[in-house]
Amino acid sequence: MKTKLTVIKIGGEIINNAEKLESFLEDFSSVEAPKILIHGGGKIATALSDKLGIETRMHEGRRITSKENLDVVTMVYAGLINKNITASLQSKACNAIGLSGADANTIRASKRPASPTDFGFVGDIESVDPNVIDAFIENQMTPVFSAICHDGSGQLLNTNADTIATEVAIAMSVKYDTELIYCFDKKGVLMDVNDDDSVVENINTADYRNLREQNVIHDGMLPKMENAFHALNNNVSRVMIGNTNFIKNRTEAHTLLTL
Amino acid sequence: MKTKLTVIKIGGEIINNAEKLESFLEDFSSVEAPKILIHGGGKIATALSDKLGIETRMHEGRRITSKENLDVVTMVYAGLINKNITASLQSKACNAIGLSGADANTIRASKRPASPTDFGFVGDIESVDPNVIDAFIENQMTPVFSAICHDGSGQLLNTNADTIATEVAIAMSVKYDTELIYCFDKKGVLMDVNDDDSVVENINTADYRNLREQNVIHDGMLPKMENAFHALNNNVSRVMIGNTNFIKNRTEAHTLLTL
Repeated sequence: MKTKLTVIKIGGEIINNAEKLESFLEDFSSVEAPKILIHGGGKIATALSDKLGIETRMHEGRRITSKENLDVVTMVYAGLINKNITASLQSKACNAIGLSGADANTIRASKRPASPTDFGFVGDIESVDPNVIDAFIENQMTPVFSAICHDGSGQLLNTNADTIATEVAIAMSVKYDTELIYCFDKKGVLMDVNDDDSVVENINTADYRNLREQNVIHDGMLPKMENAFHALNNNVSRVMIGNTNFIKNRTEAHTLLTL
Repeated sequence: MKTKLTVIKIGGEIINNAEKLESFLEDFSSVEAPKILIHGGGKIATALSDKLGIETRMHEGRRITSKENLDVVTMVYAGLINKNITASLQSKACNAIGLSGADANTIRASKRPASPTDFGFVGDIESVDPNVIDAFIENQMTPVFSAICHDGSGQLLNTNADTIATEVAIAMSVKYDTELIYCFDKKGVLMDVNDDDSVVENINTADYRNLREQNVIHDGMLPKMENAFHALNNNVSRVMIGNTNFIKNRTEAHTLLTL
């Protein structure tokens, strides 16, 4: 039987709130190893850009990454957030190692084509090296990935954190019984975006098709669910969507996705 | 016989110049592994602080690190510089892994006492874990350390890069025949600071004592030489001081320090 591996992705809502982040890291440190954390960026990069007079441009909810924007997200995601999370986990008896995709060539991406929309220095994941990530795990380390990857030719690339979590979980499933959890500020997928308690507890492929046809799922949730089913279709054992309460206590409300 | 390990420290003068840095990384990638790179910060942190209206205060040539300064150096050293160096080395067939002392608990420091001078969030190294660093080397990785450490209680600390290089070299000497090179913008220790060709080729402990008594050594060089002899007195096999030409070609002028 394969060893269980837990892959957790946290979004900006948690990172933006120092108290919430600290409480999450406490809960994460108590999750049984092996485990991997992937974190997004949050508002700090935008706030820093504003202070520096660097324009933040979005297209359909995604950040367009100029050279100056790339420097800012590299500083904030791979530096400030990643190292503070790592130091905090170290103080909680979790042997964290903060990584970008460039480190030990763990995650390679390619620059997204400039057409139809030029997103600048944004990467689409090409490959994840499960053996290298496993070498960290075998050495009792807990990898903590920021959403910065590289193209193998010296270029760093801003990459979507949900996608990194998905592709890392898929790559690790060759060896591990992998559980993937997208952790954000809602209790799960909601039937009514205005009612935090309208959590859909179970969603399988057929349910997802129906919910989508009925236009029930909030737009912002669709890419996360696409990622979830992509993971399930590629040997990830379980995918869950929930908030930090669910990380602390697995009986709390959440959405379980299955094929 | 012990395997040879090369530990190279580069300073701000190299990092400040993109072309010089790229050329150095080319040379570094051709140094036979195992090897470790330690990099300082350079002017980027001060320039970013200025843009953000954060005051940079120095005391006897050393940076006083407020909470805001710490965030800046964490962003610049552990994020921007460390990840760009790592990505660049990856493109040059050097399997770099960018690290801070918090990562995998490689280097612990303690906050320097506030008296007689309160340097703020500045760390003095307490311990280096040679086994963890060796685990990276055994996995064919090249550790690249930024000068950010942690105290084990969740606090990041700004730490002197020369000291990190020295303590890492000492810790690794238990297993390796370790060579430590401080690489900066001069060809070595100079008899006359205004004459770049006045390199002192060999300095042993007695020479050092004499040179110091004669006030020949430039003030800025003294801490580097203290570090060098501390390393030699603690099982580091060889210490050299030189510029990037010496990394490329070991017959170039440099200073060799011996006991």
